[in-house]
Amino acid sequence: MKLKLVFSYDGSAFLGSATQPHQRSVQDTLQKALAHLGIFSKILMASRTDKGVHATFAVACVECGEYFQDLNYLKKQLNKFAHPYIHIKYLKFMPFDFEVRYDVKSREYRYIFHHGKFNPFLSRYVYFYPQIDIKKANEILKYFIGEYDFKYFCKSGGDSKTTIRKMLKSYAYAYKNMTIFHFKANGFLRGQIRLSIASILKVLENKMSIEELKDQLGAKKQYNHILVPPNGLYLSRICY
Amino acid sequence: MKLKLVFSYDGSAFLGSATQPHQRSVQDTLQKALAHLGIFSKILMASRTDKGVHATFAVACVECGEYFQDLNYLKKQLNKFAHPYIHIKYLKFMPFDFEVRYDVKSREYRYIFHHGKFNPFLSRYVYFYPQIDIKKANEILKYFIGEYDFKYFCKSGGDSKTTIRKMLKSYAYAYKNMTIFHFKANGFLRGQIRLSIASILKVLENKMSIEELKDQLGAKKQYNHILVPPNGLYLSRICY
Repeated sequence: MKLKLVFSYDGSAFLGSATQPHQRSVQDTLQKALAHLGIFSKILMASRTDKGVHATFAVACVECGEYFQDLNYLKKQLNKFAHPYIHIKYLKFMPFDFEVRYDVKSREYRYIFHHGKFNPFLSRYVYFYPQIDIKKANEILKYFIGEYDFKYFCKSGGDSKTTIRKMLKSYAYAYKNMTIFHFKANGFLRGQIRLSIASILKVLENKMSIEELKDQLGAKKQYNHILVPPNGLYLSRICY
Repeated sequence: MKLKLVFSYDGSAFLGSATQPHQRSVQDTLQKALAHLGIFSKILMASRTDKGVHATFAVACVECGEYFQDLNYLKKQLNKFAHPYIHIKYLKFMPFDFEVRYDVKSREYRYIFHHGKFNPFLSRYVYFYPQIDIKKANEILKYFIGEYDFKYFCKSGGDSKTTIRKMLKSYAYAYKNMTIFHFKANGFLRGQIRLSIASILKVLENKMSIEELKDQLGAKKQYNHILVPPNGLYLSRICY
């Protein structure tokens, strides 16, 4: 049987989502929690996130024996071992042809800017940044919608065959004393959102022109090489 | 000159507030930040907190040369080096007879219970616990007010000469989906609040009687030996 896991995690407690030799990753922690329950097959993750990036909705898949019937009990047990920085939201049996990576229709991410005074209790979870002009930000964010070769919005180290992605949504909105950027695409390249946001901030700060941004989106030339910090970034939805 | 530092810290990033050989304490981090600015005298902290306990308002004192005039600039520089899990709120010059520990009139702590669904992003900052009957909790909390020998509410390892403390305030209130316990005393013993709260929860859960609690407060016998987790505890005020 294939078991789909939907879970959240505090990315500040891990060195990334994908398995690593030192085992301080989300995948390794989940893998160990499953091993405690007698499930030893390899976890496949629907998305990778870098060190410090969080997820409110991540998906993984693992094969398990038919004797696991009571998914509520299994979830409870798994949460004991994955506690406290990973939390399983629900488990679901999937047909055998379910492919956790290839069947994904869209992925969504949010990035949180906090405009209040710095506070150490939020520093893992938001990016402290001065007020943002949301109207202007939305004008810039619109340029990202559509199919592009995002090769100049890609950190090295990714393993994608193509750098073409289709952005379905990209917009900003206010929430309390924060600004949230929301992105939805069929997929994202490594570091794409953090490079995109850093570029947008540069345009807002008049350190980069709209034409330069368009050239970078048109895969002509890379003007921005910096990334915003991972703290504010959340994988927030994966649709099949 | 004596310089008073008022600061907050995320206790989950440290192994405690007091200096330790491995240097992963609040005091060591502050000491290193000060050293970057040429201040090498030893920091004295007004209060000690255990591993995992936070502070929204902690106080320390350090001697420094007279050439530090611009406290706003000094604060800014210190915050660069203490970043991101310690945040200096303000600095103030104090007269030479100021004693950061002995001049304290009262200390205040808050403990946060969260009654919502578990969430990994809050797990460092609250204690997830089912609903609490605030009226009943307040009836029990009242017993703590007054001067007591709190020797049965004291973790080993404290360095206090006496175990007598005067509790000035102890009450509970609701805030959003949380319950906050607030304590104010002339001082606290090591682990006192966490042992007190665990005892109160036992009474609320009918695992301990009011008489047993009174006996423990009367220094007759220790009925409760467990502590609530440090996550929910915040040093929140120190008055001189």
